[in-house]
Amino acid sequence: MELVKAKLITIITERLLRHEITDMIKLKGATGYTRSEVEGEGSRGIRASDFEGRNVKIETIVSESVADAIMQEVSENYFENYAVIAYVRDVEVARGAKYLRR
Amino acid sequence: MELVKAKLITIITERLLRHEITDMIKLKGATGYTRSEVEGEGSRGIRASDFEGRNVKIETIVSESVADAIMQEVSENYFENYAVIAYVRDVEVARGAKYLRR
Amino acid sequence: MELVKAKLITIITERLLRHEITDMIKLKGATGYTRSEVEGEGSRGIRASDFEGRNVKIETIVSESVADAIMQEVSENYFENYAVIAYVRDVEVARGAKYLRR
Repeated sequence: MELVKAKLITIITERLLRHEITDMIKLKGATGYTRSEVEGEGSRGIRASDFEGRNVKIETIVSESVADAIMQEVSENYFENYAVIAYVRDVEVARGAKYLRR
Repeated sequence: MELVKAKLITIITERLLRHEITDMIKLKGATGYTRSEVEGEGSRGIRASDFEGRNVKIETIVSESVADAIMQEVSENYFENYAVIAYVRDVEVARGAKYLRR
Repeated sequence: MELVKAKLITIITERLLRHEITDMIKLKGATGYTRSEVEGEGSRGIRASDFEGRNVKIETIVSESVADAIMQEVSENYFENYAVIAYVRDVEVARGAKYLRR
């Protein structure tokens, strides 16, 4: 069994941005993603009501370099104007080499 | 790009507890959370039917000290009387300093 | 407070397989799981349209040996014929010993 080290990114944001964010992560090198609806509640330091109500949670498994590019893009172009939480952690993926673009 | 080390907590429990748990995690210092519905099936050692049907999954990103306080509270006050699964892991959060209360 | 090291497995697959996969993971030693619906989009190297539309996301917390058995089974018996993503990471579980079969 082949397990490949990879990065799992989660982005939680306004429903409005769901297509824009998935387009962006594909452009940066993600080869797939999942998307689901979540309810949320606000975070200190962002607008108080930002995460109230329905939001979208987007997850993607990518290589470290693609993870860096996505997190960079979120940091530079989304935090100023939108409610966005983005976090990343290590995972081990079965047959990861098949769908992780390096 | 600033990535901050943080803890991601997941709590899966009875739908009935959804407001009580989110109130508790905010009281312990969480500044935000997401909540979604999941189907589940029972766990050995808890009541057999506990996780059958609709449950709620609550996730929050917090500092290590807040994570300890939340896990402690869950352990001490919920496990006896409710079906609860709670787990924690390390994540790296973009702009984490903005919404993590220390 | 007792936190136990465990493995969190996520399997994302065709809705069609939701019962087969949950039966399989229980057979391999999982004592519980959660299941939710996610939307997805295709992955390079798998059939192009595999993850388009509604899919199912199954998560289970298990011991390392059970995790190995489940990942092995997914690798050997599902990747050839189905759209499946499977990944694993370390978590720390409150009262984990109560429901982790060793």
